[in-house]
Amino acid sequence: MNESFNSPLLDEAVHQLSRLPGIGRRTALRLALHILRSDPEMALSLADALKRMRNEMRYCSRCHNVSDQPVCPICSDPRRDSKMICVVENVKDVLTVEATAQYRGLYHVLGGLISPIEGIGPGDLEIGSLVNRVNNEDVREVILALSPTMEGDTTNFYIFRKLQEFPVKVTMLARGLSMGADLDYTDTLTLSRSIQGRVLFSSTFNNA
Amino acid sequence: MNESFNSPLLDEAVHQLSRLPGIGRRTALRLALHILRSDPEMALSLADALKRMRNEMRYCSRCHNVSDQPVCPICSDPRRDSKMICVVENVKDVLTVEATAQYRGLYHVLGGLISPIEGIGPGDLEIGSLVNRVNNEDVREVILALSPTMEGDTTNFYIFRKLQEFPVKVTMLARGLSMGADLDYTDTLTLSRSIQGRVLFSSTFNNA
Repeated sequence: MNESFNSPLLDEAVHQLSRLPGIGRRTALRLALHILRSDPEMALSLADALKRMRNEMRYCSRCHNVSDQPVCPICSDPRRDSKMICVVENVKDVLTVEATAQYRGLYHVLGGLISPIEGIGPGDLEIGSLVNRVNNEDVREVILALSPTMEGDTTNFYIFRKLQEFPVKVTMLARGLSMGADLDYTDTLTLSRSIQGRVLFSSTFNNA
Repeated sequence: MNESFNSPLLDEAVHQLSRLPGIGRRTALRLALHILRSDPEMALSLADALKRMRNEMRYCSRCHNVSDQPVCPICSDPRRDSKMICVVENVKDVLTVEATAQYRGLYHVLGGLISPIEGIGPGDLEIGSLVNRVNNEDVREVILALSPTMEGDTTNFYIFRKLQEFPVKVTMLARGLSMGADLDYTDTLTLSRSIQGRVLFSSTFNNA
């Protein structure tokens, strides 16, 4: 699949598409051939949408979520608890947490996770601006809601260290068995974690 | 996953990406967020490559393969047997057949398969131009090398009927067991076909 297609135009389109995450050369070629067969309007709309998004997208100056106004609707909502900040990896995670309807505080979107393999360091993420918010706003609790992965844990730990000097409670999402999971099929690491983090049975009544 | 992202720009990019085949809204959002995080140059190169490919791509006037010249290198190669035409679905299939190094004739790229479900009829494909070639060029054999699917078979049959009035041999790729396949795991349809199409054992020596 490393052949050229007798056409620099097709080669270049396949090359550019295959730079996207999870898109290999085979898929890139399939997408390119689809675009070639479709209405010319489709290629144009797609190209324009991507270019405009990249060039014109604006972010909330406070939480760095995508936003068309300088401050996003969540940050400017007076009914939300501005003393709590939920730290998430990206825009999608804001929606995911919002969907639970369990959280009424504000957010802080990092824009990624620390990943030495991918060359992403703390300086590439919105960690400095988080520290500034904790320093300047009246924040009581920072909830780390990052993925339970190597990168998530590294980022959690880095942020925790940075916030240690401030009088703020730093919490993280509970880890344990997924609801509806079968104990038999739960991986050892998750099971060990949920044993270490076991909670008083009576406390589950109080939280409900 | 049908929420809006507080940003028409992101919404539009996700919408356009999710129009591509095999790209759902989740994947589209992942791709969009990746593009947002990446170098602005990346979004630009991708957008330009797609737009240029769609607008400037040229095809061989004879076989409809992609080509930068009016007639592609395969069609203009005097060492190839111009009396044979191998009919394929798309550009990728030309490369696949070429990779076998078993075929020295010319090609004809249909640009798709007849598919009533997707609204693709014979008129949307390069079938008329194939009939013209058979009518005007000195063609002895047309090899139908389409996928063994419902759409492939429909297209095979349609082309076969269109070519019946010409003194040309119409063949199709042999169907049967894949090399290295396990009889136990071969589906019934493939097995029935390979029983119906069984060949004299001695003939396999002559062909080798």
